[in-house]
Amino acid sequence: MQSRLFQDIQNDLAKVEAELAKYADTSLPTLTAASSHLLHAGGKRLRPAFVLLAGRFHNYSLERLLPLAVAMEMIHMASLVHDDVVDESKTRRGIPTVKARWGNRISIHTGDHLFARSLLLIAELNDDKISEVLAKVSVEMCKGEIQQMSGTFDVNQTFRDYLFRIKRKTALLISASCQLGAMAVKADPSIVRALKMYGHHLGMAFQVTDDILDLTADEAELGKPVGSDLRQGIITLPILEALWETKDPLLRLLVAKRDKSQEEVGQAIEIIKNSGAIDRSQKIARRYLEKAKDELKRLPPVPTRDSLASIAEFIEKRTY
Amino acid sequence: MQSRLFQDIQNDLAKVEAELAKYADTSLPTLTAASSHLLHAGGKRLRPAFVLLAGRFHNYSLERLLPLAVAMEMIHMASLVHDDVVDESKTRRGIPTVKARWGNRISIHTGDHLFARSLLLIAELNDDKISEVLAKVSVEMCKGEIQQMSGTFDVNQTFRDYLFRIKRKTALLISASCQLGAMAVKADPSIVRALKMYGHHLGMAFQVTDDILDLTADEAELGKPVGSDLRQGIITLPILEALWETKDPLLRLLVAKRDKSQEEVGQAIEIIKNSGAIDRSQKIARRYLEKAKDELKRLPPVPTRDSLASIAEFIEKRTY
Repeated sequence: MQSRLFQDIQNDLAKVEAELAKYADTSLPTLTAASSHLLHAGGKRLRPAFVLLAGRFHNYSLERLLPLAVAMEMIHMASLVHDDVVDESKTRRGIPTVKARWGNRISIHTGDHLFARSLLLIAELNDDKISEVLAKVSVEMCKGEIQQMSGTFDVNQTFRDYLFRIKRKTALLISASCQLGAMAVKADPSIVRALKMYGHHLGMAFQVTDDILDLTADEAELGKPVGSDLRQGIITLPILEALWETKDPLLRLLVAKRDKSQEEVGQAIEIIKNSGAIDRSQKIARRYLEKAKDELKRLPPVPTRDSLASIAEFIEKRTY
Repeated sequence: MQSRLFQDIQNDLAKVEAELAKYADTSLPTLTAASSHLLHAGGKRLRPAFVLLAGRFHNYSLERLLPLAVAMEMIHMASLVHDDVVDESKTRRGIPTVKARWGNRISIHTGDHLFARSLLLIAELNDDKISEVLAKVSVEMCKGEIQQMSGTFDVNQTFRDYLFRIKRKTALLISASCQLGAMAVKADPSIVRALKMYGHHLGMAFQVTDDILDLTADEAELGKPVGSDLRQGIITLPILEALWETKDPLLRLLVAKRDKSQEEVGQAIEIIKNSGAIDRSQKIARRYLEKAKDELKRLPPVPTRDSLASIAEFIEKRTY
């Protein structure tokens, strides 16, 4: 994804990577080990990319954008590592996570440290508005996590519940990356707003796609077992669509069931796939992507505008 | 403690309490339950008190001080709830922890939410310097936690390791409360500095005293079992002093041992008490308190200066 779509910011993304590596290198060996592990686990670096791309819509200044781009990725990484914390009763995922390797304690403090470190980067920008936007986003991200946890295995949740969650889980930070990148280079409020909205719609589409792929993707490409949301009781859009469409009591039972067997997960996926729920979910993702592209029309016709359109198109077609 | 020493800020401390209650009341039932539980678990509200007291050294403005005071307590509560995940502890201040009642994941996100919410309060102060100080303090607090974890059951740690830890665990946030309270009311840099140093020395003494009480206090008063540091492998000053003084191989073995029996904890406490380590630790606490009182001499002779001196004296004598 990076190489093709992020062509015009490739060099600066490399600098983001170097900075991230710098911040993972702390004075404490365990912290450094866990942070480096997290860093090398990879990731699309989507949030830094959006910060840099948004910066292209006014007086691009790497000096202003770099700390912000790094901070956004560190906030994202902090939320990932906190997500990996589990309760003793639950089984660990198959992939080695910081939690699997170092336990809950290190995960929690590595996440806290990444988050605090990103705050310091933000504070050093001396821009009250940016600090405020990020604080608000952070509060809402936590609420999204808690709502997701409270709603696990709850087959009665609404479309609105789902949207509440994925906005906070994914769209807000992507939206903020676009918005703050533009704010950091002092772009006009109309540009800031269009980029913020682009990021929101794109982020929503991205998460819907993610939720579809969790059911349909090739396991090797996905890098984790198919159906992990079902297993964890996270009820995503395709699952909800299938529940509503089929009203199948067996599906209802399977979705609500804790500690499902591999077979039961497979059975649920089959029902969902046969219900047309995947198509309907894709339609919703496409609708968000259309809205994202509509926002681009409000932006000046710089080449980066085409890159943003291409990213939207890529998300529509992505298979992992 | 509050009623006597915090007399001149009692009304405003009640307002802090009301604000804290307001922020614990969120739109999500689980989050509200966990936050309220944490709030009602009590606590000395030492950090808000220091914010308000420091504000007395210039143009006291509750409007400026209140959000800061609330934020400092929320940061403290966030760190406590994350500690509870880490330490696997079941009670704090005599009542079940959030972790014991709701599990690790709710604890982690309740802590994250409190921290993020406090950031928003700080961001709304629109004071870059305050944001920067707090971000730095937060980074260091995380490092303190990680160093504490890495050093559990390590009988070879140094006095310097211990000071590194308790500075980050306790002194930094108390010091920052004093410093930022003064900064928020635009006190002179010399006043800000003296209060910051007072808070540092007082915070160090407070933690040393805490560590002594964990071995010597009355369980009912303490609200948790005596010897919990020993049990968790947190090697505090009195334990270190006893190890150095006695060079007792049995004590060394007991301290380094994981999953100690109740009897073994009691045995270790006996050796520590008989070694004179408690006295020597108290001497170090007193030295910090003297330094704290010395800093007060640099401050204008307002009545609050006497309150700060009384707090130092209270800490010297506290039994829980």
